[in-house]
Amino acid sequence: MPKPNLFYAQSGGVTSVINASACGVIETARNHKDRIGKVYAGLNGIVGALQENLIDTSLESAATIAALRKTPAGAFGSCRYKLNSPADNQKEYDRLMEVFRAHNIRYFLYNGGGDSQDTAYKVSMFSLEKGFPVTCIGIPKTVDNDLPLTDNSPGFGSVAKYVAVSIREAGLDVASMCESSTRIFVMEVMGRHAGWIAGAAGLATEQAGDAPHIILFPEIAFNCDRFMRKVRSYVKKYGYCAIVVSEGARYRDGRFLADAGGKDAFGHVQLGGVAPCLANMIKDETGYKYHWAVADYLQRSARHIASATDVEQAYAVGKAAVEFALAGKNAVMPIIVRGKGKRYRWRIGEAKLSEVANIEKMMPRDFITRDGFHITDKAREYFSPLIVGEDTPRYVTGLPKYARLKKVLVEKHLKPW
Amino acid sequence: MPKPNLFYAQSGGVTSVINASACGVIETARNHKDRIGKVYAGLNGIVGALQENLIDTSLESAATIAALRKTPAGAFGSCRYKLNSPADNQKEYDRLMEVFRAHNIRYFLYNGGGDSQDTAYKVSMFSLEKGFPVTCIGIPKTVDNDLPLTDNSPGFGSVAKYVAVSIREAGLDVASMCESSTRIFVMEVMGRHAGWIAGAAGLATEQAGDAPHIILFPEIAFNCDRFMRKVRSYVKKYGYCAIVVSEGARYRDGRFLADAGGKDAFGHVQLGGVAPCLANMIKDETGYKYHWAVADYLQRSARHIASATDVEQAYAVGKAAVEFALAGKNAVMPIIVRGKGKRYRWRIGEAKLSEVANIEKMMPRDFITRDGFHITDKAREYFSPLIVGEDTPRYVTGLPKYARLKKVLVEKHLKPW
Repeated sequence: MPKPNLFYAQSGGVTSVINASACGVIETARNHKDRIGKVYAGLNGIVGALQENLIDTSLESAATIAALRKTPAGAFGSCRYKLNSPADNQKEYDRLMEVFRAHNIRYFLYNGGGDSQDTAYKVSMFSLEKGFPVTCIGIPKTVDNDLPLTDNSPGFGSVAKYVAVSIREAGLDVASMCESSTRIFVMEVMGRHAGWIAGAAGLATEQAGDAPHIILFPEIAFNCDRFMRKVRSYVKKYGYCAIVVSEGARYRDGRFLADAGGKDAFGHVQLGGVAPCLANMIKDETGYKYHWAVADYLQRSARHIASATDVEQAYAVGKAAVEFALAGKNAVMPIIVRGKGKRYRWRIGEAKLSEVANIEKMMPRDFITRDGFHITDKAREYFSPLIVGEDTPRYVTGLPKYARLKKVLVEKHLKPW
Repeated sequence: MPKPNLFYAQSGGVTSVINASACGVIETARNHKDRIGKVYAGLNGIVGALQENLIDTSLESAATIAALRKTPAGAFGSCRYKLNSPADNQKEYDRLMEVFRAHNIRYFLYNGGGDSQDTAYKVSMFSLEKGFPVTCIGIPKTVDNDLPLTDNSPGFGSVAKYVAVSIREAGLDVASMCESSTRIFVMEVMGRHAGWIAGAAGLATEQAGDAPHIILFPEIAFNCDRFMRKVRSYVKKYGYCAIVVSEGARYRDGRFLADAGGKDAFGHVQLGGVAPCLANMIKDETGYKYHWAVADYLQRSARHIASATDVEQAYAVGKAAVEFALAGKNAVMPIIVRGKGKRYRWRIGEAKLSEVANIEKMMPRDFITRDGFHITDKAREYFSPLIVGEDTPRYVTGLPKYARLKKVLVEKHLKPW
């Protein structure tokens, strides 16, 4: 009987280290050729399985796979595609089983956030019911850091490092200019529901007066008066005010700041982006000259400034996922467990997918200062080790050299989906 | 007679390497203690001279001065403040002379762009007329790369590296997501009048299909129909389209694609927000899902990804400025001269301030492809060596450690300005 194959797919918004997890999966599977046949990667995530677009990773060289560890984004393609429950759309699950059967796939490793862990869990249950048991292991990934049970999510540490470095640097810029020019700088960061990324930017503040002066979290309802008072007080004291705002910052009634639908002084509709929106509000209230930045995808793809700790953990959860599968575990996800001591240590633990699926971990209130505008020492203790270490990509003539895959598809056996 | 002192000031928008020039000035002056007394730095640029706010750099340790080489932004403060001609506002020039006399300042080193070189030139002429000759040396600095005579401007190579790295990374992100989500990514970069920075982003394209697919330059009038056809063709061919747009991109009639309305101290229109504007246009025309980023100050303060070549050149022009002054030169600016051979070499040359002042060097038309949407091989040859090499700052617990200065002011002798 041929050895069972492994199917790996990337899901949802990508990160600068999700390919490090892919590298961990593929390298570990290659070390167990006695028990695992080939690793197939879904072209564009789970959609690749439905469409029978399976990338044969065995055709990629060891050097290319190793280079994945230092390559941002989803090398095999990701997707925003959520499978409903089998009760609602059994056809999708039947199709998955059909593809898995046709290609002798007995391991399904799904690299994503909460939605994806939910899918992996459902596939696991469904495959058991159908008498074609597939071992389903989730691999955690999200810049949002909102997966439960794990101490942190791979992908987060690097975006955290990016935003903290960026606001430190831009803060120095504004400090240079504020005497006669820009006094306000607003940097928008990701995090629709939870303020983890915004909070991490607070690490840049080491002494009083360091940027960022103000952080706006989704967890704290925006109060315009209190905010403007704070802005004015910083400009008075330090000459400028550097602000980090989460894209999810909102009013008490739940409306996003960015969705306020405002118009600028010239009657132009504001074109999205909480940073320009907030900067305009400040301008209207105070008259201060402003600049703003929206890093958007730059923050989550910035492999050049990835956290070495994050890269190691991303690799480790990929490796552990294969090891879990080989150890006969099912419907579980490797997690990061933080040691108790003062010195940061971590190890791989295990969580049941049923307990992970669709639960968002919010930032604790005691990570945010009483006034709601910055982070506490407790938050610093949590965030700080996650951004430690630099894991520099290889540079060729000044630019990072990232992996280029062949992405050869396996021959199809089935009718098109 | 006490040794003459040197006054150094930073001017205009800062860069990630202007402090490397400051480091070059101060370290070189310290090596010539027989001929130069103290180096005073203007607190917030030339305004510091007018207000008699002179930072005594002799009180900063050698280690702090050395750390300036690896610190972004203007450590002494910069300003957007343009001196008019002496005929229009002689009081300012009289005041400068008064301050220089009071503090025995006989060397004036002005680190800035075209406007600043103009000021340095005027001060030089004025001081001669007034019988208190001050040696005036310009030090080139601008991310815009628009200074004439010099092959390139210190500050540009690092922003060039930042934008090329960023669009490469974000391009991989969009490529991962495009099957089921984002198909359009727009990154806005600086460059009010010339497309140097936008052009440098083109270095990220090494093979057909690599991001950026389209670059919009201020030099090429924006034609919406041609642009949209191009966008559609890339989405059809590669699944997505990554666009770099210069903040100065404009229509045939000269109107900017985005015009924030305000004007800065030099009367320049304050730009910002062309990325969301363009992304919306594409959405309206094609319906494609988009993301956009505006790096703004992040791009010019990103010392963590500075070009080693740029850092060396920034230091070298600072050093050369002091050496020029000591060699009895006046009203000149050190420039970067590129060697003729295939292998990139550079040396320091010299330009007269009278020939530098207020002239903007535009990007040659043959740097832009015929269709106006990308860069030519000739442009690549020019840009490529400027981003070579990494000059990594020192990291402490995951964050770059930048210089913190004491900035002790010299005792004032004069009435307030």
